[in-house]
Amino acid sequence: MRKFLATFLAFATATTLFASDNDKKVYRLKLATSYENTMPVLGDVVADFKKYADELSGGRLQIRIDTPTKHKAPFEVFDFVKAGQYDLAYTALYYFKGKDPKTMLWTAVPFGMNTPEQHAWFYYGGGKELSDKMFAQYNMKSIPMGSTGIQMGGWFRKEVNSLADLQGLKVRIPGFGGEVMSKLGASINTIPTGELYMALEMGTIDAVEWVSPVYDMSLGFGKVAKYYYTGWQEPTADTHLLVNNKSYEKLPKDLQLILEAAARMAGEDMLNKGFYENSRIWSQMKTQNPNIEVKSFPKDVVDGLRKATNEILDAEAAKDPMFKEILESQRAFQKIGREWYKISDFAYIQNTAE
Amino acid sequence: MRKFLATFLAFATATTLFASDNDKKVYRLKLATSYENTMPVLGDVVADFKKYADELSGGRLQIRIDTPTKHKAPFEVFDFVKAGQYDLAYTALYYFKGKDPKTMLWTAVPFGMNTPEQHAWFYYGGGKELSDKMFAQYNMKSIPMGSTGIQMGGWFRKEVNSLADLQGLKVRIPGFGGEVMSKLGASINTIPTGELYMALEMGTIDAVEWVSPVYDMSLGFGKVAKYYYTGWQEPTADTHLLVNNKSYEKLPKDLQLILEAAARMAGEDMLNKGFYENSRIWSQMKTQNPNIEVKSFPKDVVDGLRKATNEILDAEAAKDPMFKEILESQRAFQKIGREWYKISDFAYIQNTAE
Repeated sequence: MRKFLATFLAFATATTLFASDNDKKVYRLKLATSYENTMPVLGDVVADFKKYADELSGGRLQIRIDTPTKHKAPFEVFDFVKAGQYDLAYTALYYFKGKDPKTMLWTAVPFGMNTPEQHAWFYYGGGKELSDKMFAQYNMKSIPMGSTGIQMGGWFRKEVNSLADLQGLKVRIPGFGGEVMSKLGASINTIPTGELYMALEMGTIDAVEWVSPVYDMSLGFGKVAKYYYTGWQEPTADTHLLVNNKSYEKLPKDLQLILEAAARMAGEDMLNKGFYENSRIWSQMKTQNPNIEVKSFPKDVVDGLRKATNEILDAEAAKDPMFKEILESQRAFQKIGREWYKISDFAYIQNTAE
Repeated sequence: MRKFLATFLAFATATTLFASDNDKKVYRLKLATSYENTMPVLGDVVADFKKYADELSGGRLQIRIDTPTKHKAPFEVFDFVKAGQYDLAYTALYYFKGKDPKTMLWTAVPFGMNTPEQHAWFYYGGGKELSDKMFAQYNMKSIPMGSTGIQMGGWFRKEVNSLADLQGLKVRIPGFGGEVMSKLGASINTIPTGELYMALEMGTIDAVEWVSPVYDMSLGFGKVAKYYYTGWQEPTADTHLLVNNKSYEKLPKDLQLILEAAARMAGEDMLNKGFYENSRIWSQMKTQNPNIEVKSFPKDVVDGLRKATNEILDAEAAKDPMFKEILESQRAFQKIGREWYKISDFAYIQNTAE
């Protein structure tokens, strides 16, 4: 009997009991986000992600979120994940273009793909494979987790009527868009967020590019700058979940998939919420500041910005074969994707305008 | 010892073994789809959904898919789920507008919201709450699972230059779009799919509305009709997963969420895949049939179609308060959503066109 019991216990331990313990094991991952949770829309994404991961896993996958208030380094989260200091990060990859210019291609390219084009290319046009190849070099995966959608061109105190008007124009516009404007003679400023409104009001700067109505509203730019220019510099601005490869490999297969599912759901929520909130806030802005005028740059300015953009992109491609590979893949799909977009969604709005 | 063993077994059965059995219990659900798995894009959605449900649940949620070849009734899947004959169905809800005209409002409304507008409204503008309220009456939930994106206006052998040209025009266009065209004097046909190409070639019909390049390509309409009109009748065409409430309630909480997650992921895939494939196939179509001309209806035709659309919608709203409630909610969001779309994605394409 003792032998039978011992055998039974050994069997039970090896299979049922052990399997059950293992099934119920809680995996805890630490995430560093580049955004405070007070940011509209962007600040909600990691909370949604955490909730989905918890619920889909029946509590087995727990994410701890550290915002910049805690980790103090919103623009270093790439290195945090690379080094394994954090398992996960939520960020806009173009913050890291100083480290690797290719990071930019996953967020926003001036005159590049808009959100539906970018996502179609990523999942079906070879984007994911190129992303996996590139980020493996950093010991990470990069999983798309949302988008702000297209960003507006910014708030301008003066009209821009020709390329000559960009000469000496004092603009706050970060990243690649800033590089392009700088190449065309604009003077690019890096004024801290808290001082932007005052700088614009005082004329220390002539223009500020931020995001879109839901993000711009609380900063009040529309009260001191009359012209709201349409976008060219970020036709989409995708945000990503960076995942340390070792942390990922430690998860059981179903939790790896749940991690990706939670990211996709939180990302889809961000896009839908952003569209809804931009619509709602834009309608309020127009009512509260009826003087706001929406403008688009004239053709020679657009042509100049595009030429400068392509020169910078081509220069990067000449330096790095993988930059070239990604850029060429994007350009090839954008060409045919845009033709389809023009006869479908674009034509619908144009054709049915009242 | 025997007593001890019995106690141990009872304990093991009641806790560990039972809990483990329960954790590992496999839930099997039957799904009836309206589409054969040979349909491009649309045919892949349920297979993606099944795969995601399996993987995210570690095998605990198993979906059996029956296509029309098996169940013989693509347009009766609504009743199958209502009655509990199937747990799930995948379909376009407007097939059931004869049963309840409100079903149409979830799929496509002529001159209505496009895909980003519809999804922003559904998740953040009150759509989901109205859907839950409406489908509870049928003992179901309706979960969005993809979209074809906007559909083209159809293949026409002759140009439509004025409202008068619609008089007696023989058009194959189903559903609400057909009702609208009929109201304006067109003669609406219901020719089986397999005979459409011949009917168009022989002039038995003058025009056929199908979907978009990836769906239209294999039917060859571009070879016999020169004009490809842009869309007005289905600015989005969302597809849905219908879920029997009793089947849903039998699932543990985490599997309920996994069911919804799998639907959302398969739906997002459909939209991205559709955009990619439409782009790819449209570029082939233009190369193979350089004579295809993309046209949009002139203003008086658009105005006439819109007026007829609104008359039909308003008549339905007058008959059913819930139809009115959903329609008003959609119209209110469309108004502000379209204003945002026009200065964002639309302006970008317009402003940067070469």
